[in-house]
Order: sequence, then structure tokens, then C-alpha cells
Amino acid sequence: MSELRREPVSQRWVVVTGQPWETLLDLLKKVKGGDQEPCPFCPGHEAETPPEIFALREPGTPANREGWMVRVVPNKFPFLRIEGELERTAEGIYDRVSGIGAHEIVIETPAHEADWGTMETHQLEGILQAYRERILDLRKDHRFRSIVVARNHGPHLATLTHPHSHLLALTVIPKRIEEELRGLLLYHDRKERCAYCDTIRQELESNERVIQATQRFLAFVPFAARYPLETWIIPKAHAHDFGLIGDPDLKELAGLVRDFMGRIRKLLPEPTSSLVLHTSPLQRYTEPRYHWHIEIRVRLPVAEGFEWGTGFFVNPLSPEEAARLLKEVAP
Amino acid sequence: MSELRREPVSQRWVVVTGQPWETLLDLLKKVKGGDQEPCPFCPGHEAETPPEIFALREPGTPANREGWMVRVVPNKFPFLRIEGELERTAEGIYDRVSGIGAHEIVIETPAHEADWGTMETHQLEGILQAYRERILDLRKDHRFRSIVVARNHGPHLATLTHPHSHLLALTVIPKRIEEELRGLLLYHDRKERCAYCDTIRQELESNERVIQATQRFLAFVPFAARYPLETWIIPKAHAHDFGLIGDPDLKELAGLVRDFMGRIRKLLPEPTSSLVLHTSPLQRYTEPRYHWHIEIRVRLPVAEGFEWGTGFFVNPLSPEEAARLLKEVAP
Repeated sequence: MSELRREPVSQRWVVVTGQPWETLLDLLKKVKGGDQEPCPFCPGHEAETPPEIFALREPGTPANREGWMVRVVPNKFPFLRIEGELERTAEGIYDRVSGIGAHEIVIETPAHEADWGTMETHQLEGILQAYRERILDLRKDHRFRSIVVARNHGPHLATLTHPHSHLLALTVIPKRIEEELRGLLLYHDRKERCAYCDTIRQELESNERVIQATQRFLAFVPFAARYPLETWIIPKAHAHDFGLIGDPDLKELAGLVRDFMGRIRKLLPEPTSSLVLHTSPLQRYTEPRYHWHIEIRVRLPVAEGFEWGTGFFVNPLSPEEAARLLKEVAP
Repeated sequence: MSELRREPVSQRWVVVTGQPWETLLDLLKKVKGGDQEPCPFCPGHEAETPPEIFALREPGTPANREGWMVRVVPNKFPFLRIEGELERTAEGIYDRVSGIGAHEIVIETPAHEADWGTMETHQLEGILQAYRERILDLRKDHRFRSIVVARNHGPHLATLTHPHSHLLALTVIPKRIEEELRGLLLYHDRKERCAYCDTIRQELESNERVIQATQRFLAFVPFAARYPLETWIIPKAHAHDFGLIGDPDLKELAGLVRDFMGRIRKLLPEPTSSLVLHTSPLQRYTEPRYHWHIEIRVRLPVAEGFEWGTGFFVNPLSPEEAARLLKEVAP
């Protein structure tokens, strides 16, 4: 059984899943050796995953059979489990919380080789819709304080290359979200405005780091981007909760994300990217002053060294140059 | 000219060095393609680096010639530069600081293929001594608020595989150090004790995560380790400033680090590791309640996905199991 542990000084949460060392070494070989065969996320292999929780399907097709466009299942090897008592215990100066949570996999498409950069916008819309539906369902469980959606795609990042996202419902609030909240609230206290709303205004005005703006969304390279092609996609109008996004917005967002991923594919032959959805915490931790957004990181094996240990980043590419590159390349 | 930029919400500092995209793509190819030939850090190639700032040499050998054991040079392609005016400017809601700082390279050994895990302890002592001497020298420059020492070693982490460390003197305090300081001060306010001193006491008592303890130092896997074999090496007696370490301590530390790296090599055939020295900020930011230590991360390509975006880590190996593995393997 996994557990959550909190670092006593930085207050950082870690899930310790407790796999044996040998399993890790095996996993290492698999990551190096390429794809698992046959792929359990491909159509026809529905029985190899736990039963589906949500799916977008052709009308009339039964659950856990072919005919789906997007399929959400519990992770077969979850970091956290839904069942059990939520216990918070101390061990001297340390804090532990039992590994309660949800860990779901969004299987994004039946097409094993698909990529967000070449996908139909309609398919991407289905994926974002699955995120929203799962977020709305999971928040009914009052133990959960936050939901994280994250995806990695590209060579050497995962044991399974079939496009998929992880969705985690947590009994804690991740450090980066907590930090952001603290920063946004401090700014709000001083200025009575949202720092991200101000950022959007300034970015649109200067136009130095804007990649693309639609009616409702903005894709831009942040002023202090940590990584060469780091990009944020954010709703122009203040909105704290991705769960409340409407259908027209979802469609527009899908188009913008699709365009961005298309640009990346034009710049790099085999792009490896990571994406995280940042949205307000839940329950009594809901904060209307939060501003949800998507952070995308394109992984280049350069100049990543001690950021993990210092929180001090070196970005070799200027954000303005990154925005120019991304803007000028056709999606 | 590079510059420092601060993210307005999380207050994170980023150095933007502003290389052209083409240079980055070239670098990418080099990282993939393996080592640069001939190696500019090897003996006989001293003229290919900027002139040395510090060296441990055979008596009588002239500077910038063969005969050195450890050699410190300014980085030929520095992230930051010593010369110039320290300017802090605003751009709307954003903060910029000119890219002033020192960026030095510690060439750790003349032996291109050397590894800390197989090196003579005496050589490692020389490297740690070089860190100390450079820290003591650089802090005379009153513009610098902190010094970071970091090293990456192993395949696919750097364009140059010859063992070397980076030493950065900064006009800002990195986020992780600032966070740690805040946590340590909060703890101190409540308990009038150092949280890391308490950690050391608890770790020695439980002995669950101790890898090795010497008279003055402790190597242990932290309770909330972020990575499978993450290890901290810390002085048992409270000390905030690595610059003030004495020679006997340096020697003992070198032996312990050497042992740890030897253990890693026994567990993994081609280990890739990163190391960061955490020491108190400088000048009026000096904080005696800080507790210096070394953080070491062994890089495994597993389960690293969204930590960068959430600050929420998943560690597949339990810290107790990691400590057991590392303790039982002979260095």
C-alpha cells in the first residue's frame, strides 16, 4: 500500500509507492527496449485494463468493447487507491497520510500512433471532455482536495507509448499549486486584481511572447519560461475551475492546443512533451482567485541539471525567440 | 548578454541565456552523438579553456599546463558574467536583473573516464577543497547573495563527459534555498531547534534510512525522498556554511561521498547522478540557522513525469528499501 509523506522543511508531498528494486530495474529495461507488445490500450484489448469508468463511444456499442473514441479506466498499477481509511499519522517530526486517492488513465484515442499535433480537433475535444467529466465526478468524493491531470508523450518517457493521460485525485494540495495560490492571493491583497489576468493583458499588449490568441484563450511563452519552448494556455477571462468549462470553450481550447502541438511537431522531428492542467483545489479549499491554465513543456536534453536541486532554472532560449519560432511555424 | 527573470507569482528565478534555436538543435545532436573529441578538459588541452583561477598542482608545474589534479576555470560559455552593472528593472509586472554572476567549471580530475565511485578519496578531497576555496574567494564580491555548486555525471546528461562541476555565484537566492530557509526559520521559531538537527537525531535513532554514519557526517535516504535512490549527506553537528568546513572534516566527507558513489556503481551499471551543494546564502543574507548539506539524485528514467509541473512527486521505491539496498552493497 502506498502512502503520502511530507518533507518537514519544504512541506513537499511525495507518494511512496514502495515497489521492489527489481521491478524498477525491469521497468528501466522496458523503457529502453521500447513499446510493450501487445498494447493493452489498443482496441480489442479492453479486457486487459480494469473496467471503464467513462467513455465516448459509437452509439450502441457496449462498455469495455471496441467502438470507443476516448476511454477512462482506473490505473492497473495505481499510485493511490480509492478504498480505505484516510489516516494522518506522525512519526516523530515526520507526517504520513495513507495512500488514498484516485488514479485514472485517460486512453486518449484508439490509434496507437496518434499525436496531439496531427489529431482531429474533434478527438482532442473528446479528451478534454473526459478530463472535465472525471473532474466533476471525482469531486463528489469529499476526501479529495485537488485533482491533477498530466500527460507525457514521446520517446523514452513512459513504458506505454499509446497516447494517454494520468488523472490523480489527491487528499493533499500539490506544492506548486499551493505556491501559486499563495502568490496569487498576495498579489490580490495588494492590487485587488488577478496576477494572471494582468499577465494576459500585458502579454497581449506587448505581443512579444504571444503564440496564438483566440477569442477566449491565449497561448504564450511565459516571461520567465523555465524550459526552451515552455508554453502556457490560459482562458482570457478569469476562471478558477476547469471543471466548469462550457462546451463552446472546450471546443475552442481543443483547437488551440491542437495547433500548438502541430507547431511543435514542425520544429522537432520526434517531440517529447509534458502537459499539466492547473486548476483550483476542491471542497473548502476552492479558491475563486485561482486562474486555471495548462502548462506545456517540450523536453530537450539540454541544460537540465540542477534545477531539481535549486529551483533555479537556466533557459538557453529566450522566451521572445521561442514565441517567434512557435508563432511563425504553421501548425 | 543573459539576464535573470523572476516569475511574478511563484517568484522563481530563471536565467535566460538567449542562445539561437539552431545552436540548441546542434547541442541536442551532440548530446545524442556522444563525447566531444578532443576533450578540452583533458591534460594537454589547457589552452582550450579560459586561464585557470585555482588549481591543485604538482609542486613546480606552471599554471595552465599539465601537472594539475583539480583545475578551476571560468566557463567558456557562461550563464552569467562577472563584468557589468548590476541593474534591476521592471517591465510592467515583470522583474529583470542583469546577468551578473560567476560561472566557473571545476575540472575534477585529469582522468577523462574517472568516476567518483572509483576515484581515490584523496582526489575527491581535492575537488571538495576546490569548492571551498572558490566559495571563500567569490564571497568577497559583495554583489553575490548565494553560491550554488552542482554536478551531473553519466551518459546523456552533458555535452562533455569529462568529470566536472559547475559553480555559480548569484545575485539572487535560488527558490529551493529560500524555501528551505523559510521552513527552517519557521521550525526554529516554534521549537528553538534546527529541523535538520532533529532529522539527524531521529534518523540515527530509528536507523531505518541510514546508509552510513561517520564520526562527523551522516548519509541517509530522506523520509520523503523524491527519487528512488535520493540521498543526503549532512554534517551531524549544526553548521550553516560549507565555506567554513575544516580540513579533517573535508577529508572525512570525501571518504563518505566516495563510499556512497561506490555503492551506486554496484547497484547500477552505468549510473547517472546529479549532486547539489546546499549552503547558507551570503553577505547580509547569511543565516546561522541554515544547515548545509549535499543532495544526491540518481537518475532513473522511471516515473518522472509531472513533478516539474505540480511539485508533487511519485517515488516508486520506499526510502527504507533504498537505504537497505545502499547500506548492504559494499562501496
